[in-house]
Amino acid sequence: MIVCFVPYDENICSYMTVKIVLIGAGNVGYHLGRRLKEAGLQVVQIFSRQEAHARRLAKEIQVPFVTDLAQVVTDAELYILAVNDGAMNEVAAQLQVRNGLVVHTSGGTPSAILQPYFPRFGVLYPLQTFSLTRPIDFTPIPICVCANNTADEDFLFKLGSIISQNVYKINDNQRAVLHVAAVFVNNFTNYLFQIGYDILQQENLSFDLLRPLILETAAKIQSHAPAEMQTGPAVRGDAETVERHLAYLEKFSEYQNVYQLLTNHIQKNIIIS
Amino acid sequence: MIVCFVPYDENICSYMTVKIVLIGAGNVGYHLGRRLKEAGLQVVQIFSRQEAHARRLAKEIQVPFVTDLAQVVTDAELYILAVNDGAMNEVAAQLQVRNGLVVHTSGGTPSAILQPYFPRFGVLYPLQTFSLTRPIDFTPIPICVCANNTADEDFLFKLGSIISQNVYKINDNQRAVLHVAAVFVNNFTNYLFQIGYDILQQENLSFDLLRPLILETAAKIQSHAPAEMQTGPAVRGDAETVERHLAYLEKFSEYQNVYQLLTNHIQKNIIIS
Repeated sequence: MIVCFVPYDENICSYMTVKIVLIGAGNVGYHLGRRLKEAGLQVVQIFSRQEAHARRLAKEIQVPFVTDLAQVVTDAELYILAVNDGAMNEVAAQLQVRNGLVVHTSGGTPSAILQPYFPRFGVLYPLQTFSLTRPIDFTPIPICVCANNTADEDFLFKLGSIISQNVYKINDNQRAVLHVAAVFVNNFTNYLFQIGYDILQQENLSFDLLRPLILETAAKIQSHAPAEMQTGPAVRGDAETVERHLAYLEKFSEYQNVYQLLTNHIQKNIIIS
Repeated sequence: MIVCFVPYDENICSYMTVKIVLIGAGNVGYHLGRRLKEAGLQVVQIFSRQEAHARRLAKEIQVPFVTDLAQVVTDAELYILAVNDGAMNEVAAQLQVRNGLVVHTSGGTPSAILQPYFPRFGVLYPLQTFSLTRPIDFTPIPICVCANNTADEDFLFKLGSIISQNVYKINDNQRAVLHVAAVFVNNFTNYLFQIGYDILQQENLSFDLLRPLILETAAKIQSHAPAEMQTGPAVRGDAETVERHLAYLEKFSEYQNVYQLLTNHIQKNIIIS
């Protein structure tokens, strides 16, 4: 099935025939590759150093793969580097590209990392957390694009619009800020889940007790601002409950520190309207 | 429509005809009242000091309401106190109950708060965050019950099974622990969303950019343990990114403290398997 969000215009055919090479078949590469193919775009080759990864994606989307960078075709029009931040320089240095546009998919890395290697470079950053084991609907995922020239940036924006309903032109500075914010709402949030898990486990209580609450907390935020949704002893100034919780957390001194710090901040910052 | 999760047995009719009085028509009372009625249970009266709240729920589930505690019927078999923790003592002291079982719905309050007032008391705690403006599916919500005698506890367990698929016998100590854990995964998580919101706002970036990430972070946890899902610069030991983020957060010193503390803990505690 071809699902495409760009209204039909005279140029759409040119986007749909762009030859794309996907470098990397890990979490991001896997889901991006599937979506590009599903949207009817032309992925002509997959590269991954890890043959199992390359083979899995290649089989799924029926595209040839290579495991040697020297075998990557040089005449594609778009190269998408879905590789770890740490591997970016090494891969970029070895990649031979005749005239194509080269983008990476990283939130935390400036586009300029590609400048020494390619005349045309940019970023196509899908702002989401990906796992190989979880299917994901790509259409609501924000796609943040930028490039070192306007024509390529417009091209990436249009390409993003083919795979997602939410495309943004976001420069390197803005993307760096987004990445910091994403660490708070994803990585640190997950760590709070870990604290909940750990506290319950030590009392032989199932984490299942918290799962519906976690899902609803995130669901509420889809249509409200966080400040409107803040509840709990800290925001309602319930000092007695806070003291009781801190006393209980004596046996988890690190969690007690987190509780104290976040409670202080909530009390100081949030104004109930 | 009557949806009921208790397999039919000879006693089911006795549960379905129990006369229930609902004290409180705020967030919890509203959704609980709707669910009790939907499941075919007999809510005979609603009390709320706030007439608008009482009227709204009464109209919706077609049950009489009163706004004066002295007018509450004294011969019901179950009284559910869905009132704020702070109002619990005052309401309990004024409530005249001939022989019924009285329960509250609070995670943070021991059942013993009801002991001075009623011979039969307990708790029916739905572990979820409720908003008047959001409809909610009650069936997956964990219902935590306890009572001061086994017969009432069994009764509450059966009653809970009529309105939810997940009922647990949870004593006061366990519920207190659950409440601490819920503060981490709900209240503190929401505060991390607030940090993300605030950082983005100061850069004129839309919070919509983070919403899909927030939802997926919570969705992943429905079928995985948090430790398996931990990602980000802290857990992968990416000191360069951590330093860059901390430098950016210089202008948000409180957020910098949160970033530093949580990063330290993740690095110390999480072992990637």
